[in-house]
Amino acid sequence: MNKQILLKSRPVGMVGKEHFETVDALLPKRLNEGELLLKARFISVDPYMRGRMNDVKSYVAPFEVGKPIVGGVVAEVVESNHIDFLPGDMVLGNLTWTELQVVNGALVKKLQKDLAPLSCYLGILGMPGLTAYFGLLHIGEPKAGETVVVSGAAGAVGSVVGQIAKIKGCRVVGIAGSDDKNAYLKNDLHFDEVINYRTTKDMSAAIATACPDGVDIYYDNVGGDISDAVLQHINKYARIIICGQISMYNSTQASVGIRPQVALIKNSAFMKGFVVSDFAEYFPEGIKQLAVWLSSGQLKHQETVMKGFDALPDAFIGLFRGDNIGKLLVEI
Amino acid sequence: MNKQILLKSRPVGMVGKEHFETVDALLPKRLNEGELLLKARFISVDPYMRGRMNDVKSYVAPFEVGKPIVGGVVAEVVESNHIDFLPGDMVLGNLTWTELQVVNGALVKKLQKDLAPLSCYLGILGMPGLTAYFGLLHIGEPKAGETVVVSGAAGAVGSVVGQIAKIKGCRVVGIAGSDDKNAYLKNDLHFDEVINYRTTKDMSAAIATACPDGVDIYYDNVGGDISDAVLQHINKYARIIICGQISMYNSTQASVGIRPQVALIKNSAFMKGFVVSDFAEYFPEGIKQLAVWLSSGQLKHQETVMKGFDALPDAFIGLFRGDNIGKLLVEI
Repeated sequence: MNKQILLKSRPVGMVGKEHFETVDALLPKRLNEGELLLKARFISVDPYMRGRMNDVKSYVAPFEVGKPIVGGVVAEVVESNHIDFLPGDMVLGNLTWTELQVVNGALVKKLQKDLAPLSCYLGILGMPGLTAYFGLLHIGEPKAGETVVVSGAAGAVGSVVGQIAKIKGCRVVGIAGSDDKNAYLKNDLHFDEVINYRTTKDMSAAIATACPDGVDIYYDNVGGDISDAVLQHINKYARIIICGQISMYNSTQASVGIRPQVALIKNSAFMKGFVVSDFAEYFPEGIKQLAVWLSSGQLKHQETVMKGFDALPDAFIGLFRGDNIGKLLVEI
Repeated sequence: MNKQILLKSRPVGMVGKEHFETVDALLPKRLNEGELLLKARFISVDPYMRGRMNDVKSYVAPFEVGKPIVGGVVAEVVESNHIDFLPGDMVLGNLTWTELQVVNGALVKKLQKDLAPLSCYLGILGMPGLTAYFGLLHIGEPKAGETVVVSGAAGAVGSVVGQIAKIKGCRVVGIAGSDDKNAYLKNDLHFDEVINYRTTKDMSAAIATACPDGVDIYYDNVGGDISDAVLQHINKYARIIICGQISMYNSTQASVGIRPQVALIKNSAFMKGFVVSDFAEYFPEGIKQLAVWLSSGQLKHQETVMKGFDALPDAFIGLFRGDNIGKLLVEI
């Protein structure tokens, strides 16, 4: 059986295993000119994919019911009918959740096997790393001595944001949902302060304590009440980078809370949403810089790896339980 | 009697006449070196002044209870002990609400009497005009063919925003609170579409109809539900300029509504708060350009003028009733 996972139905509210279905995917008898037969090796689960399960307009088209889930995959070339690829090559692509699949070689990118562990191309050298890099540096423009707060701080994006902010000489305050995560952020990644939002009763007071000079940059991965609290402490000319709103992704209601506009006027501050593809023209710069920091040890790379193709739905659901430290992915 | 108006007490909720007190202000016997005796000729009332009546941190210090209200004033020099000023000169300054007052000449700016009517320096060539100019052009960066929505469209700032957007070749949609205001916007200022928020039941549908290509720039003077509705229709890379939130200024509650973050992510859009002083270094450019447009007739200048010093409290309160078309001021 060549396992493939489809979107069985659109979740309304929290996503569960019942929204996925595993089927046997047919393979063509032979490869057409330019095609590759690929074997999935690492499959990424990312919070933004929850949005694609809804049938609403957004920056990426929704998944279709009865069609395979699509996301970041590192795969091995098993057979090639494309001049640029040989069996054994490793590639990165936006591919279906399928054990073996045929795609045109033009749709994938060959990876350098020796630069970094292959799974890094789904994490720190891939979409999450670039999301951290461009959001923080191109939108936030951090300056040494400024205070940077990051929510979802132990996640694939947040953990890189905090580390880059430290490289840039900022005071870094991370907000995450467990003491284990926060111990990792403080001890391994050298964040200056951490806040456990699950055990903190008064988030606003906790942020005031952790940020005695106020908040210059808020890199927001979660939204909701946590963000409302951070916004009460922003400084003049603060930058609020809206990367994700994971606290809202499984909600069936519009997100209602304190409107940020008054805080933005009082502080001449801005709030900017983005997706990493906005910065596509700068990707080579970003990948190169991240690789340099990674090889010098200035950036650390943390993964939570689940094993086996069948683990995919639960891995994805785990994102919203906060299961992971660092990048969450499935090794096939 | 030399009338002066003090802040008698801080309003909680809607500001009323009871929060003002008129007293007789003493004048010094003679002017010290550098001082001027000024007679107020035009006194400005502006929505931002409501914020200064609260005892909270913001971009300007709060007014003090028992001290005079301070705001934009055009005054005539009655006596001068400053080398740069002569009796009869007209000056602009951030002055107290007082009929006759003594200030150091360094704190006021001499006006060119022949360039434009003097009251323009409190409106289209003053703080409101510059607020419109820099917010729209330096933050919004409108491009020909884009759709610009402006709330508080008939006010001192909004009416200039819409006109500049038309000069820049944009489709302009104004939101205001009366049919008279909207007739003025459409017939005199040539806005493309207008929406009366007081008589429109479904603001979101009205915006969709008025903006068939979506909203590229939203210049927000009012906040609240009106803004929530506009945000549902923003385009990719939309710019939301947060200039004012007049609907909230007399509220005792935090402004609660649909959080804009999700709309900002989906559209890679930004929302930026500002105050005009952020652009102080560019003021000469702005004043020059506004004066050129004014003299060429590309910009029209509308005022609602109330007469007499005693009218000041009611003029100010009228801002929040939406009494005015264009700049509201008091001629002494």
